[in-house]
Amino acid sequence: MVIASWQDLVERTLAGEPRALARLVTLVENRAPGWREAMKTLYPRTGRARILGITGSPGAGKSSLTNRLAAGFVERGHRVGVIAVDPSSPFSGGALLGDRLRMKDVATAEGVFIRSMATRGSLGGLCQGARDVGRVLDAAGYDLVLIETVGVGQDEIDVVRAADLVMMICVPGQGDGIQAIKAGVMEIADVFVVNKCDRDGADQVEADIRGMLALAGDEPGDVETVFQTDSLSGRGVPDLLDALAARIERACDPERGLRRARDEVLGLVEGEIAQRVRTWIEDGERLGSCVERIRSRRSDPYSAAESLIADFDRVGADPHE
Amino acid sequence: MVIASWQDLVERTLAGEPRALARLVTLVENRAPGWREAMKTLYPRTGRARILGITGSPGAGKSSLTNRLAAGFVERGHRVGVIAVDPSSPFSGGALLGDRLRMKDVATAEGVFIRSMATRGSLGGLCQGARDVGRVLDAAGYDLVLIETVGVGQDEIDVVRAADLVMMICVPGQGDGIQAIKAGVMEIADVFVVNKCDRDGADQVEADIRGMLALAGDEPGDVETVFQTDSLSGRGVPDLLDALAARIERACDPERGLRRARDEVLGLVEGEIAQRVRTWIEDGERLGSCVERIRSRRSDPYSAAESLIADFDRVGADPHE
Repeated sequence: MVIASWQDLVERTLAGEPRALARLVTLVENRAPGWREAMKTLYPRTGRARILGITGSPGAGKSSLTNRLAAGFVERGHRVGVIAVDPSSPFSGGALLGDRLRMKDVATAEGVFIRSMATRGSLGGLCQGARDVGRVLDAAGYDLVLIETVGVGQDEIDVVRAADLVMMICVPGQGDGIQAIKAGVMEIADVFVVNKCDRDGADQVEADIRGMLALAGDEPGDVETVFQTDSLSGRGVPDLLDALAARIERACDPERGLRRARDEVLGLVEGEIAQRVRTWIEDGERLGSCVERIRSRRSDPYSAAESLIADFDRVGADPHE
Repeated sequence: MVIASWQDLVERTLAGEPRALARLVTLVENRAPGWREAMKTLYPRTGRARILGITGSPGAGKSSLTNRLAAGFVERGHRVGVIAVDPSSPFSGGALLGDRLRMKDVATAEGVFIRSMATRGSLGGLCQGARDVGRVLDAAGYDLVLIETVGVGQDEIDVVRAADLVMMICVPGQGDGIQAIKAGVMEIADVFVVNKCDRDGADQVEADIRGMLALAGDEPGDVETVFQTDSLSGRGVPDLLDALAARIERACDPERGLRRARDEVLGLVEGEIAQRVRTWIEDGERLGSCVERIRSRRSDPYSAAESLIADFDRVGADPHE
């Protein structure tokens, strides 16, 4: 395979070539040479796509519901991108024992582009990775990007926090499943779905959600917030699609946009500086001796870190010194 | 309440005062003034405790099994500390809508000390926080520390990665639950438990686990690796206790210790420098103008981050400049 330049991939992606898009996404996700320039070039072409974050505990049926929604939105005339950031997703093709990032194309059906990202070892951070891939899809003309991720874990919560609209999937019979999710995601979810609604206890889960919303002081608005679906049969999906479509149209909160831009720049700066610090420490074999002193308890991790930071201050943050 | 100095709290903790211990843990966890000095002072007194990481998906019965194990180890003469880093844990007292760190004592039964940490907003990082609290308990004479956390999410995986021994809890009927966990935790778990083993499908889950272990090339060793328990009735718990006790005795891998010391020092340095970068950026109102330019697409996040990093390089990493 001829190695294409990032310029070439950007140009062909904007011209609508699906294979170029797939390779550009890989380049950006892997932080391969040119990724930053590619993103800078694409950025002015972005801003049209809406991002729908889909989250829920393992076994909630996120992937099959995401599939249903993607198909439904395509029928309604959208071009849909799907980013699965979920180790349980069948899209991910199994990250078992894998430490490294894995991504691959799973489907390239007309109007849909699906990518999966493993949650571990993501270069530059999981959240920024998903954000960048979403932005490439945006520039390529996908006007709706579904990001599917598990609802537990700070990284995963950050991913959905970066979405325009957040949908949380619950399921009957998962014990303290709702309990687990509510802590992090409940307060950022806009729409709640009780999936596998033919199971016993679906109404109870719905009542629990409504109870928690009431507790949180959310007024019942003019648009329905809680839905029951069965992603296997498709039951309840059309109503959910209607509600999501209506809400996505409205989801342009400038406050949210400002906060997200702030978070992103901060994250990029911190990530880059952390990378430099790590390279500096690891390059100089600076760790070896202090680790041995810590292990023998002649020193401690806190003092060792302080002394390394003092050294770093002296040489400065500039990687060329 | 009289505010005690860290010196005072350290002294009284080492003298065995439970109330001082509780307050010292709070001080350290909150990064209150003196936390670092307290940790440095305690460090030479640590190294005796073994850390058992307990992980599993929400609803797997982690908390009740942890309770059973804690009680069992106390009966066997251990002093046991429990750190619950799990939003679904009943110990956590509900982090619903809470953004801030919450910790409180839940139990102070003879020989057991239980603390819970919310997974979000943990100052200095979740993993370092759990590590520091575990170390305080170690210095206070708790020779076994159980750290309970959910099995999904990088932060949570890092927490168990810092343990001497890792136990993963599965449960029948959670659909792709094992699927979700295996990606991150399967390869670092030493012991597997199928909890709620009276449910249909327990044998299948056990077979799945054994299958995955075989796939990963793990030879069946002389100590059993996979157990079935029912944490409600206590069935299977004595066998599990025996196996854990045997393995904890042996869990002193020097390689693992070295890697952990490295990871910790790196994490402390990176965390401190990231904190400085954040303070520097936020203090100077440096973000405001570039965020507006990004929003109007006159600039992009990548260029803005580069220019902030260049500024940071000029002034240096020293917070006093």
